[in-house]
Amino acid sequence: MDTEHKILLVKCSDSKGLIAKITTVCFEHQLNIIRNDEFVDLENNLFFMRSELEGNFNDSKLLNAIKLQLPSDAQFRLVSNERKPIVIMATKEPHCLGELIMKSTYGLLNADIVGIISNYPDLSSMAENFNIPFHYISHESISRQNHEEKIKEVIDSYQPEYLVLAKYMRVLNPEFVASYPDRIINIHHSFLPAFIGAKPYHQAYERGVKIIGATAHFVNNNLDEGPIICQDVIHVNHRLSAKEMAQAGQQVEESVLTQALQLVLKEKVFVHNNRTVVFD
Amino acid sequence: MDTEHKILLVKCSDSKGLIAKITTVCFEHQLNIIRNDEFVDLENNLFFMRSELEGNFNDSKLLNAIKLQLPSDAQFRLVSNERKPIVIMATKEPHCLGELIMKSTYGLLNADIVGIISNYPDLSSMAENFNIPFHYISHESISRQNHEEKIKEVIDSYQPEYLVLAKYMRVLNPEFVASYPDRIINIHHSFLPAFIGAKPYHQAYERGVKIIGATAHFVNNNLDEGPIICQDVIHVNHRLSAKEMAQAGQQVEESVLTQALQLVLKEKVFVHNNRTVVFD
Amino acid sequence: MDTEHKILLVKCSDSKGLIAKITTVCFEHQLNIIRNDEFVDLENNLFFMRSELEGNFNDSKLLNAIKLQLPSDAQFRLVSNERKPIVIMATKEPHCLGELIMKSTYGLLNADIVGIISNYPDLSSMAENFNIPFHYISHESISRQNHEEKIKEVIDSYQPEYLVLAKYMRVLNPEFVASYPDRIINIHHSFLPAFIGAKPYHQAYERGVKIIGATAHFVNNNLDEGPIICQDVIHVNHRLSAKEMAQAGQQVEESVLTQALQLVLKEKVFVHNNRTVVFD
Amino acid sequence: MDTEHKILLVKCSDSKGLIAKITTVCFEHQLNIIRNDEFVDLENNLFFMRSELEGNFNDSKLLNAIKLQLPSDAQFRLVSNERKPIVIMATKEPHCLGELIMKSTYGLLNADIVGIISNYPDLSSMAENFNIPFHYISHESISRQNHEEKIKEVIDSYQPEYLVLAKYMRVLNPEFVASYPDRIINIHHSFLPAFIGAKPYHQAYERGVKIIGATAHFVNNNLDEGPIICQDVIHVNHRLSAKEMAQAGQQVEESVLTQALQLVLKEKVFVHNNRTVVFD
Repeated sequence: MDTEHKILLVKCSDSKGLIAKITTVCFEHQLNIIRNDEFVDLENNLFFMRSELEGNFNDSKLLNAIKLQLPSDAQFRLVSNERKPIVIMATKEPHCLGELIMKSTYGLLNADIVGIISNYPDLSSMAENFNIPFHYISHESISRQNHEEKIKEVIDSYQPEYLVLAKYMRVLNPEFVASYPDRIINIHHSFLPAFIGAKPYHQAYERGVKIIGATAHFVNNNLDEGPIICQDVIHVNHRLSAKEMAQAGQQVEESVLTQALQLVLKEKVFVHNNRTVVFD
Repeated sequence: MDTEHKILLVKCSDSKGLIAKITTVCFEHQLNIIRNDEFVDLENNLFFMRSELEGNFNDSKLLNAIKLQLPSDAQFRLVSNERKPIVIMATKEPHCLGELIMKSTYGLLNADIVGIISNYPDLSSMAENFNIPFHYISHESISRQNHEEKIKEVIDSYQPEYLVLAKYMRVLNPEFVASYPDRIINIHHSFLPAFIGAKPYHQAYERGVKIIGATAHFVNNNLDEGPIICQDVIHVNHRLSAKEMAQAGQQVEESVLTQALQLVLKEKVFVHNNRTVVFD
Repeated sequence: MDTEHKILLVKCSDSKGLIAKITTVCFEHQLNIIRNDEFVDLENNLFFMRSELEGNFNDSKLLNAIKLQLPSDAQFRLVSNERKPIVIMATKEPHCLGELIMKSTYGLLNADIVGIISNYPDLSSMAENFNIPFHYISHESISRQNHEEKIKEVIDSYQPEYLVLAKYMRVLNPEFVASYPDRIINIHHSFLPAFIGAKPYHQAYERGVKIIGATAHFVNNNLDEGPIICQDVIHVNHRLSAKEMAQAGQQVEESVLTQALQLVLKEKVFVHNNRTVVFD
Repeated sequence: MDTEHKILLVKCSDSKGLIAKITTVCFEHQLNIIRNDEFVDLENNLFFMRSELEGNFNDSKLLNAIKLQLPSDAQFRLVSNERKPIVIMATKEPHCLGELIMKSTYGLLNADIVGIISNYPDLSSMAENFNIPFHYISHESISRQNHEEKIKEVIDSYQPEYLVLAKYMRVLNPEFVASYPDRIINIHHSFLPAFIGAKPYHQAYERGVKIIGATAHFVNNNLDEGPIICQDVIHVNHRLSAKEMAQAGQQVEESVLTQALQLVLKEKVFVHNNRTVVFD
């Protein structure tokens, strides 16, 4: 029988002996722990654990045994490291979409882009080059609610694990967002919480900052205020106009979004309230 | 006659031929340009120039000749690269003050710390170790205005070129600030404009950011809104409490403040409105 | 008559008054200097200058007038900011080639990829997706010299401005390299001069380094020893195997190569001996 | 009875169930795990674990119980988080020594500098300012061996936990180094393995690199080849001479050395062969 590789994820209220109890169950099931990460949020008395296990799995038996060791509020899952279907939403800018397509097709993104949705037709040729279905759903002459219902219909037809906003430039209604809790990932083109909202590079130029950046975060609530997964910055100087800042920022937007998605796809990110635990 | 080394600084409205005119004057005075930096702010039609010159100087003759070539709004100066007197204000935290003292005494800060002012006595022993006058001016049982008048009196007795706020934790009145235009340098413990005001590390912790940083800026107007000289960040993760973020941030606060002060002391920073031009 | 935008590039032995003389000629031709950068290499007595000019150009008249002001060893050119043809050589790895294709097609790379050459067929489908001619030239059963002659023939049929080695994994003969002086740009997957040669990530893993990086450089002489254009690093830890380091390094390889090529295409890079002057 | 805080450190050959066994012992001793880090080096079949424990400790009982669970090759310790005595060796440069003194006296370095040794008298006044014993031991007119014996005598009189080479510019004999295995920490002013040996900034200048850096490492064997703890770099450009690179590099030398020492003092660093495991 071949050895398998799976990941155990646990989140629950903290108490003494949790690591001992969980790892003892794994040991009794003759599973080897390849990598183990835990975090105790002392302020909120919360326990997070991610174990990469190797061996022969009887999933339901293992999970039942673990359940017996955990408090009643525990959330826990056993997942395998398979490619996951994702849907991408974009507007007109090609760089983040292009990066994700390249990384998914040739690189290190453990996901299949099953569909692309945009409120403009500009990016359709890029999608066609890679034979990815492209859905142009204009927001013109239609209510925001109707627009989002049409989008939702397309998304749901694909049953994606995650929805990635790769420079999708419209605000989403709370109802839409609530349909995909902890499953919408956005790239915002500033180091949040600075420069929330529209035109962050213009705001950055006006303020005269010496760094610009990007933030990948889950969209769970208010605009640009969801749990942050990754952030990074680059240095800029007085020579850059707002437009040149926007150009210079593309590379950091791409890499932060890709990095965040890699972490999420490897099940390395836990969300709690408005924060993330990232076992990178 | 020995060769001297001086720096010519020019700021004026832009027009064709300015570099040619200014450098021709320098050439006619048989001065060699060791390093030259210019910047044209196209949006505001402004010209900035910094020339490191080598040769034998007749300062007034050179400045008069340059004046004839410049528009009437021009600000220009010829400065030498001497150590400058500075006064430092701090509160209780030792790390930024300690860094400036070390760098001034043994290192690469081209300034003499002629006096230290604090609203608490905690840092007096550090000042004593280095024989720097320490002025404890408590803000207790005294109006803000009176407190600042007392501080101002001490500062003015030293005639410093710059006033450095090395984690001085009180807001300064506009009247006080107006006394030292473009001459007060503050270190703020966040990547501005994020986390303005009090307890930025607590704000950062609450927001769940993945980077923390520091910003050195001139204090010219509203709290934490003056022209930015330098900024930098470090990466943090979910393991850090607000207190641990504050500890981790110390190194970046120190280095950003030192770097900003080095640039200002080398006459590499121009201020215009709420922005800086930095020829680093 | 429309205003044009051109770039004047000068490299010569240094002497007093060069900036004055050159900018005076520009002024006399009623050209406005939008951006000006100079550098004097004091050790080698060399002068480098790059001027972005705006106005109505009489190229030959301007160049003749400038020639009169320069020493006899001067190299100078007036160039416009047009898209340039480039040829890319790769082996099997898709990430750098993919990045350049995306950036050239949709992004901020001011170049047309006119042809792709590889010693393996693996990347042909990527080239086809974007309708870029792909030349598979195997190095099997053929001498190195013959292989390179075949490659050279293809390259020369395209007359490219630059030849980009986007993870081309074979060493090139000096004769080949000498055909394209200062025109071959390579990305090496380490922070040079560390880990020269084959398998730098394995070398990095063996040494236990805490950073890995990438270096973009001109290929002018010995392997991995040409003039460096850009370098960057990322932090790694003990958890990464050599293979995981190689994966993690892909993003920095891509971005360093793209950045280097952007700088070269904007005529911001001068080469002198084994060094570069980069006006970024 | 007050709750105590201790750290359990384990290094041994890997086998199934180690985490379960160790944490079960901790649980049976009613100790709470505040933070737990493990690493399995799959290539060498090695297990590393660091547990921050809270509770009431019976040290010998706990260690005996843990010993029963571990393989015979196990190295394990239970340590408390107390300030440790360190001795610093330096030559003439003040910045690293100054940084460590400041951080030890006022900051976040959990160590007491009990003595300073130098082969030059230059830094004595700095030591005096802080009442730290300074030992000037010249290397002139004396054999290397005799010089090191004298140094060793002074070091051993202090019984330090660690010996820090804060820009000590002489090579140490293998015999000297062997006296303090895994206990000598050096700062080298380059990103190793580049620019090993003397004058790394001159080497960096000659090579025309675009980054310079620093490396903190244990000194266990050959010059600049010991296990690396931390590394970092800063970007430089063509404007910097070798001397200016050396000046610019001071800040990164200081911060890398401080960071490495903080990690070591918090018992976050394991050494195995020529590599480190760092639970930062």
